[in-house]
Amino acid sequence: MTTAAQTSDLKKRASYKAVEFVKDGMLVGLGTGSTATFAVDALAERIAQGLKIEAIATSEKTAEQARRLGIKLTDFAHHHQIDLTIDGADEVEVSTLNLIKGLGGALYREKVVASVSKRLVIVVDQSKLVDRLGTKTAVPVEVVPFGWQLTAERLKNLGSTPELRLTSDKKPYLTDNGNYIIDCRFGKIEDSAGLADQIGLTIGVVESGLFVKMTSLVVAGKSQGIEILSRS
Amino acid sequence: MTTAAQTSDLKKRASYKAVEFVKDGMLVGLGTGSTATFAVDALAERIAQGLKIEAIATSEKTAEQARRLGIKLTDFAHHHQIDLTIDGADEVEVSTLNLIKGLGGALYREKVVASVSKRLVIVVDQSKLVDRLGTKTAVPVEVVPFGWQLTAERLKNLGSTPELRLTSDKKPYLTDNGNYIIDCRFGKIEDSAGLADQIGLTIGVVESGLFVKMTSLVVAGKSQGIEILSRS
Repeated sequence: MTTAAQTSDLKKRASYKAVEFVKDGMLVGLGTGSTATFAVDALAERIAQGLKIEAIATSEKTAEQARRLGIKLTDFAHHHQIDLTIDGADEVEVSTLNLIKGLGGALYREKVVASVSKRLVIVVDQSKLVDRLGTKTAVPVEVVPFGWQLTAERLKNLGSTPELRLTSDKKPYLTDNGNYIIDCRFGKIEDSAGLADQIGLTIGVVESGLFVKMTSLVVAGKSQGIEILSRS
Repeated sequence: MTTAAQTSDLKKRASYKAVEFVKDGMLVGLGTGSTATFAVDALAERIAQGLKIEAIATSEKTAEQARRLGIKLTDFAHHHQIDLTIDGADEVEVSTLNLIKGLGGALYREKVVASVSKRLVIVVDQSKLVDRLGTKTAVPVEVVPFGWQLTAERLKNLGSTPELRLTSDKKPYLTDNGNYIIDCRFGKIEDSAGLADQIGLTIGVVESGLFVKMTSLVVAGKSQGIEILSRS
């Protein structure tokens, strides 16, 4: 058993390790979620020690943290490529490094940032490593609010149990883009690439939380130490 | 040469013809744009004469017109299938009845409504009939505002000249979903189905204005009379 405090410590140590890949002059993508929060902290410490970088954030929340810590932010009006992005994940398939992301709700911006990053470094604690995606978590799918019921039906026809994500006061959760999230429980996914395309072509879908062939490195915090996995 | 008044008259006559396909008890999808406006007028006249239907609108503008004319509106929380939708189009490929739609900005809702319609009846004047889609107009693509510059670059890489749609005061045009539109000029499109998939799988794209294999009938207003085209 790993306690929440231990998990948090694993994430923190892995985040500090991941930030070692950042070099002077880089444009850095900043993820969203508890792990990314540690990475932003670690980055701010290195900036205080003299590191010079610019960053693009994947959520308003991360942008706020970065601004507070004095990290210089820029945007896609000024840059079309990112050198290195550090982000968390909800599940990492060990054999492929394909991911499920977006339980934090920022999957769209995370995917945009990942898609233009030369290197995507994913930081997780050991509990996120799985043999097959879908083992533990649902695939979050960002959808346009208008007609979401129809989109949910289509996602069901792809073999999932879809559920509209709600806030604590039972209203639809809204993404930074003003869209809804439907969490789709597929069970173990045999063909993530094929499924990602099927979901992507579904009318009403903006983007899914399946990240296929995007990861460069995974920095995994394990109780016995930090392990680095790279795509073969 | 056809004058604007003549074109308008062709659209109007074709719209009235299309509305003849509506029967008592149907759930009717209402399109958006100048042609759809005539169809909504025609439908209201038939309702005044005793026709009983419910309708789903593809834009706030059409919904407003329908309410003003006393047409009963419903939504996708209550219905997952529409009997017949009447809408306009910007280009109709005569051999396939594939369409380019969305110059009016409502392509997403129009596509959702079309996708759940048992029959999609498209009303156009003769100037919209083409041998190949892309001949006259750009393909409108609805995109998420965040990172739209990257999406435009990807759409350029698919072989188009992309242009962000602006309002008269030079701000990005906003769809009913709060997204942007990038008008992509491809020139003559040889494979609409393949291109629709490529655009659909592009990160940042919500939906494209290519409507492939959705049309049941086209009612075309021509100076020599009304012509009805059906998919072979």
